[in-house]
Amino acid sequence: MTEPQVASSDATNIQCEIKRDGDSYVINGRKWFTSGAMNEDCEILIVMGKTAPDHPDRHRQQSMILVPKATPGVRIVRDMLTYDYDDAPVGHPEIVYDNVRVPAENILLGEGRGFEIAQGRLGPGRIHHCMRLIGCAQRALELMCQRAVSRTAFGKPLAEQGSVREDIANSFCEIAQARLLTLQAADKMDREGNKAARDLIAAAKIVVPSMAARVIDRAIQIHGAAGVSQDTFLARAYVYARFIRIGDGPDQVHLAAVGKELIRRGGRGVTTRAP
Amino acid sequence: MTEPQVASSDATNIQCEIKRDGDSYVINGRKWFTSGAMNEDCEILIVMGKTAPDHPDRHRQQSMILVPKATPGVRIVRDMLTYDYDDAPVGHPEIVYDNVRVPAENILLGEGRGFEIAQGRLGPGRIHHCMRLIGCAQRALELMCQRAVSRTAFGKPLAEQGSVREDIANSFCEIAQARLLTLQAADKMDREGNKAARDLIAAAKIVVPSMAARVIDRAIQIHGAAGVSQDTFLARAYVYARFIRIGDGPDQVHLAAVGKELIRRGGRGVTTRAP
Amino acid sequence: MTEPQVASSDATNIQCEIKRDGDSYVINGRKWFTSGAMNEDCEILIVMGKTAPDHPDRHRQQSMILVPKATPGVRIVRDMLTYDYDDAPVGHPEIVYDNVRVPAENILLGEGRGFEIAQGRLGPGRIHHCMRLIGCAQRALELMCQRAVSRTAFGKPLAEQGSVREDIANSFCEIAQARLLTLQAADKMDREGNKAARDLIAAAKIVVPSMAARVIDRAIQIHGAAGVSQDTFLARAYVYARFIRIGDGPDQVHLAAVGKELIRRGGRGVTTRAP
Amino acid sequence: MTEPQVASSDATNIQCEIKRDGDSYVINGRKWFTSGAMNEDCEILIVMGKTAPDHPDRHRQQSMILVPKATPGVRIVRDMLTYDYDDAPVGHPEIVYDNVRVPAENILLGEGRGFEIAQGRLGPGRIHHCMRLIGCAQRALELMCQRAVSRTAFGKPLAEQGSVREDIANSFCEIAQARLLTLQAADKMDREGNKAARDLIAAAKIVVPSMAARVIDRAIQIHGAAGVSQDTFLARAYVYARFIRIGDGPDQVHLAAVGKELIRRGGRGVTTRAP
Ligand SMILES: Cc1cc2nc3c(=O)[nH]c(=O)nc-3n(C[C@H](O)[C@H](O)[C@H](O)COP(=O)(O)OP(=O)(O)OC[C@H]3O[C@@H](n4cnc5c(N)ncnc54)[C@H](O)[C@@H]3O)c2cc1C
Ligand SMILES: Cc1cc2nc3c(=O)[nH]c(=O)nc-3n(C[C@H](O)[C@H](O)[C@H](O)COP(=O)(O)OP(=O)(O)OC[C@H]3O[C@@H](n4cnc5c(N)ncnc54)[C@H](O)[C@@H]3O)c2cc1C
Ligand SMILES: Cc1cc2nc3c(=O)[nH]c(=O)nc-3n(C[C@H](O)[C@H](O)[C@H](O)COP(=O)(O)OP(=O)(O)OC[C@H]3O[C@@H](n4cnc5c(N)ncnc54)[C@H](O)[C@@H]3O)c2cc1C
Ligand SMILES: Cc1cc2nc3c(=O)[nH]c(=O)nc-3n(C[C@H](O)[C@H](O)[C@H](O)COP(=O)(O)OP(=O)(O)OC[C@H]3O[C@@H](n4cnc5c(N)ncnc54)[C@H](O)[C@@H]3O)c2cc1C
Repeated sequence: MTEPQVASSDATNIQCEIKRDGDSYVINGRKWFTSGAMNEDCEILIVMGKTAPDHPDRHRQQSMILVPKATPGVRIVRDMLTYDYDDAPVGHPEIVYDNVRVPAENILLGEGRGFEIAQGRLGPGRIHHCMRLIGCAQRALELMCQRAVSRTAFGKPLAEQGSVREDIANSFCEIAQARLLTLQAADKMDREGNKAARDLIAAAKIVVPSMAARVIDRAIQIHGAAGVSQDTFLARAYVYARFIRIGDGPDQVHLAAVGKELIRRGGRGVTTRAP
Repeated sequence: MTEPQVASSDATNIQCEIKRDGDSYVINGRKWFTSGAMNEDCEILIVMGKTAPDHPDRHRQQSMILVPKATPGVRIVRDMLTYDYDDAPVGHPEIVYDNVRVPAENILLGEGRGFEIAQGRLGPGRIHHCMRLIGCAQRALELMCQRAVSRTAFGKPLAEQGSVREDIANSFCEIAQARLLTLQAADKMDREGNKAARDLIAAAKIVVPSMAARVIDRAIQIHGAAGVSQDTFLARAYVYARFIRIGDGPDQVHLAAVGKELIRRGGRGVTTRAP
Repeated sequence: MTEPQVASSDATNIQCEIKRDGDSYVINGRKWFTSGAMNEDCEILIVMGKTAPDHPDRHRQQSMILVPKATPGVRIVRDMLTYDYDDAPVGHPEIVYDNVRVPAENILLGEGRGFEIAQGRLGPGRIHHCMRLIGCAQRALELMCQRAVSRTAFGKPLAEQGSVREDIANSFCEIAQARLLTLQAADKMDREGNKAARDLIAAAKIVVPSMAARVIDRAIQIHGAAGVSQDTFLARAYVYARFIRIGDGPDQVHLAAVGKELIRRGGRGVTTRAP
Repeated sequence: MTEPQVASSDATNIQCEIKRDGDSYVINGRKWFTSGAMNEDCEILIVMGKTAPDHPDRHRQQSMILVPKATPGVRIVRDMLTYDYDDAPVGHPEIVYDNVRVPAENILLGEGRGFEIAQGRLGPGRIHHCMRLIGCAQRALELMCQRAVSRTAFGKPLAEQGSVREDIANSFCEIAQARLLTLQAADKMDREGNKAARDLIAAAKIVVPSMAARVIDRAIQIHGAAGVSQDTFLARAYVYARFIRIGDGPDQVHLAAVGKELIRRGGRGVTTRAP
């Protein structure tokens, strides 16, 4: 989906062209951060572009189409890094599509359904990131506790420093809360479906990546130089938490949507009932 | 319990003297913030003091005793204010006990049991404050939403300002999480008792007052001058949230206790299971 | 200036009517938070209203006019409180103006100049609040330090708790920075005038009240129950810092103005040179 | 200085052995994060170790000594990464010293002077990091402003989003303040020397890296995926700001020192005078 030239958090900005030509579609565009596409095992790309750029409904202009990576005109320009991590072998390359021709039946679900497909997949995608990040935060908390007892500075173990205890206690409280919120969202998805759970999923997506980044960052600090290095999983986990504040909808976009919806409902939300 | 001269978050500091003298006890001391004691209907005071100041176990030195307010020697010095609120008719007076004599049977549970009584009552007391504060925060959120649609500045309703939407969305997320944590603590108290739920209660006590103060403070800001005035419940609710960060155990004391316990357990907490 | 019914951070919203009628003006409107007007010594009110509500330039519709408090039709409805403080004898009353007639020469500077007068006075008004609040924060810091050495909990003076030291050190760093920013703004006002210093004044107005509220709030916490009571100046000073985040332009309005101007200048500000 | 096995923010923990043996010293120990040592041009290492591990004054046990990189027994084990950056060609390797023998005259200043040398160099080292980080933050702010006008999402340029303006305005205010504090510290170093400026240097070291990390992080967010990638300087600058919160004294160590000193002085600091 994402393109370097346009603000891709707003999917209506997409410029990639998917043009019908007889029995095929011809694709022209530039994408980046196509996660997984560096992988040798990756054979098929899912490309989102516009089949009907002038459609009056801005959410019916886009379509998704399957493109075998080996198709002529598909060119991997370079791999994008996140804080210098290349996430090999997965990767997030920039890819140019230059007059790429694929059979018409490669279109997914039908022309104009691209936005709809994206919406459908994003709920599960988001909650799964939340779950993984809660795991990362919990693991960071456990490392913090281990470090606190095993490291001695200025005459006593870190575990006896008040500010270390406060960092640990606050991290526990923040993880506990975020976990419950995520469980509640997941439970509602199971019972009532992704659409009914939309606000709770957005709330989890707002809360969890920031919480995880904060907790992991405290763990980094307590580990000193080891914390920023390759010797713990912390720096990498921080980067993961950090980029999820951008990917799958930047924080600001979710906040604006949840805020707007709450105002409409007079502040009454969906989480008022016990889990 | 609380005395002006000593740090009363540490109950072992208590200086009030409760001395056995024949069939009575004689009480000497100065207390303040005795909530409810300004009330005309209040007839009996519960006083905590030391019956055995030299007892080797620092948690067996204290006792609690019933003192009728009309007993000679009981003198209400003044009412304590919180940010100029007198919380009438409840009040939180400073009280001097000057050779106050009461019958020996007024002692509660027995000599040396004061600390134990205090501990037993604090769990329920804390969770009840959390519940009330979540209600305050939710009400503040609803007021924010109403204000956002009814107030227009710089050409559009506040509801259309991005930062207002973010404040509202963040408040929702914070309330939702704190509510789930409090429900989990309460549920555990019901099922397994106050002692088993101790860490969860402490976590709620750490999280909720700060959360409520933050949410109510945002609501104050959106209300402009009305927010700090007597025309909304906000300023008063803020003060309530604020003093609960001190009363029933200051934040720092709970953070230190939870942090210490978590370090002991290697970061593994009690909230890892689904609610 | 401020009226209960409209968002008064946007002065173009003002509804109070000032109508020419022969040699006089007749004023109709409702104002609140008119600081100082409860004072018995206060004899003259400065009222801002619209003399030309249909003027095409929205900043030429307003005028300011002198109204002796004893004029028939001036009615003090009630005093407004801030967190229950009445700030006696100053006060911030709500005042109704009901067909209040004053001589035409009471108009200040001339019809349509109200906005201009307000703008001219606001710079000095704002910086003076910043100066007073830096003093409050400094005093709170000194109280914190005194408290830290004189209060013992859990076996050692608060001064030896790591988190207390961190609170004190952070407060010092924040005060030091805000003081330098305010001095720089004041220096620029002296040398180049209020207009040239506009951005620096706004920056100080954004920074200082929040900083002071934060520092004072930490001092409150370290003082325990005494901190929220009438026994220290802290609770009252907090309320002062807090309402200055609303009065003389709410934070959001200054942030929006400074942000817009910075974007126009590509992020290059006025403080790049050494003091 | 820094060793993997011990908390090296407390220099008294150092375990590396520097033993006199006739006309030479023999060094045994393991160091890491020796910045610059990967560089081919680097020919000499400065090693800190203990010449008198039993000296009663814990700050006279350490010495510094010059070790040519090519000396037998010096083994570069691996390069340490920071969030996967290798900072080539500089590098921060882990180095083992295994019976490394150097002439006795390689000792710097004399036995037992290691701590003193470290102290002397740290002031200038710290302020120079602050200066560079203020430059990074300013550059990030300028990039934010450029991005805000050039990127359009949801129907308007980011520059018109309230929360973007607030991020930019807050960043400006934070940079302006930190810059003034750093200038004041530098000015005092010039006039009165490093020792007199110690508290101001510590204050700048506490304030600037966190400020820079915060500002750069906002810039990352506004840049979306580009912000975390190799296409801007932002991710790398963030990592620099982040590790300076650990290197040259972790935040907590400076906060504890400044807090302790302030308490001693009753909260009266060194920045009370105008610059
Ligand atoms: C590691 C990684 C993996 C990724 N994998 C994939 C992938 O597999 N497939 C794919 O298609 N994409 C992928 N992405 C891209 C990701 O989905 C986009 O980066 C994201 O949608 C944001 O788009 P953008 O980068 O163009 O940012 P923009 O849309 O330009 O937004 C930039 C910033 O503008 C601000 N902003 C936007 N709207 C508002 C608003 N209304 N109010 C206030 N501020 C606002 C926010 O701060 C936002 O972060 C990946 C990204 C990363 C970092
Ligand atoms: C409105 C109100 C109503 C109250 N009602 C009652 C009542 O009905 N009965 C009653 O007995 N009491 C009551 N209290 C008193 C309350 O319980 C005490 O204020 C509280 O226990 C703290 O005691 P203290 O005020 O002596 O603070 P202190 O014990 O002096 O503590 C002050 C501060 O020191 C710091 N501190 C303490 N320990 C540590 C640590 N280990 N690490 C770091 N920092 C630390 C914290 O910041 C703490 O806030 C009330 C208080 C208020 C404000
Ligand atoms: C103690 C005190 C003394 C005062 N003394 C005086 C006095 O002597 N004379 C006088 O005339 N006035 C006085 N005032 C009033 C003060 O100037 C006004 O309260 C202030 O201008 C804000 O106006 P408002 O209360 O109508 O808030 P509103 O204008 O309704 O604004 C409310 C809130 O809306 C939000 N908001 C507004 N614009 C934006 C935006 N663009 N983006 C995002 N959010 C926004 C902010 O959060 C703001 O706080 C006093 C106020 C106090 C509290
Ligand atoms: C990129 C980089 C370059 C470096 N270059 C060099 C170099 O060239 N030469 C060199 O000698 N070193 C270098 N260092 C190492 C750096 O100086 C050390 O990492 C630093 O001194 C901290 O030591 P440590 O990592 O052993 O952490 P520790 O000493 O183990 O401390 C870890 C954490 O414990 C906590 N802590 C410590 N004391 C307290 C306390 N009193 N209260 C509360 N919490 C506390 C803090 O959170 C701290 O971050 C570099 C580090 C980095 C990251």
